[in-house]
Amino acid sequence: MNTLERWHQIIKQGKPELLDEILAENCVFLSPVVHTPQRGKALTKLYLTGAMHVLNKDFHYVKEVVSAEHAVLEFVCEIDGITVNGVDIMSFDKDGKINEFKVMVRPLKAINLLHARMREMLESLAG
Amino acid sequence: MNTLERWHQIIKQGKPELLDEILAENCVFLSPVVHTPQRGKALTKLYLTGAMHVLNKDFHYVKEVVSAEHAVLEFVCEIDGITVNGVDIMSFDKDGKINEFKVMVRPLKAINLLHARMREMLESLAG
Repeated sequence: MNTLERWHQIIKQGKPELLDEILAENCVFLSPVVHTPQRGKALTKLYLTGAMHVLNKDFHYVKEVVSAEHAVLEFVCEIDGITVNGVDIMSFDKDGKINEFKVMVRPLKAINLLHARMREMLESLAG
Repeated sequence: MNTLERWHQIIKQGKPELLDEILAENCVFLSPVVHTPQRGKALTKLYLTGAMHVLNKDFHYVKEVVSAEHAVLEFVCEIDGITVNGVDIMSFDKDGKINEFKVMVRPLKAINLLHARMREMLESLAG
């Protein structure tokens, strides 16, 4: 099974603890909110775990565009009646593991809401 | 020449007036800021023209992921010392014309700046 198929399985099962399998050790996470990259497998997993908790209502992918090096998955979900539309942009290393995970979100209202929710979630996961 | 090659040419030459060739009549523009779709070729062209004026400093694409139905082009540019990182997500109709153009941008600081600049630019283009 390739990394992208495994990603979909992990999302479907809601099991972020399985992310270790498909993230490279030097994976970098780039958030929709902050410019500074979050470096390393552990931090990437923390952010993705937080996102899986926050973006859980009716989360589904609507487009998937894939090349050998990258996959772009567009998603839609809802938080508090606000539609969140975003993309997961994954890059793969030579072993097929994810070495960069970038998220962008629209519209502005959704980013502001996501920002607040992710901060609460990361504090709760870290605590 | 296909639509995507033509898009790159139009961007390179800075000639938004040529967009008519590659936009479908029923094209929909989805902005990074506002949820509501902007419908029709004329409005899509207006927004893309505004964006080409605002995002002109050191604008370059850094990733391109393409399928038969969609193209995702990730870009980087700079406004007032702020790095703007975004994606153009194009969808193609059966004639190969663009019938949906969606833009997402990160980080939050860049979206807020782009929001202000696009408003000024659209007022100036409309006036």
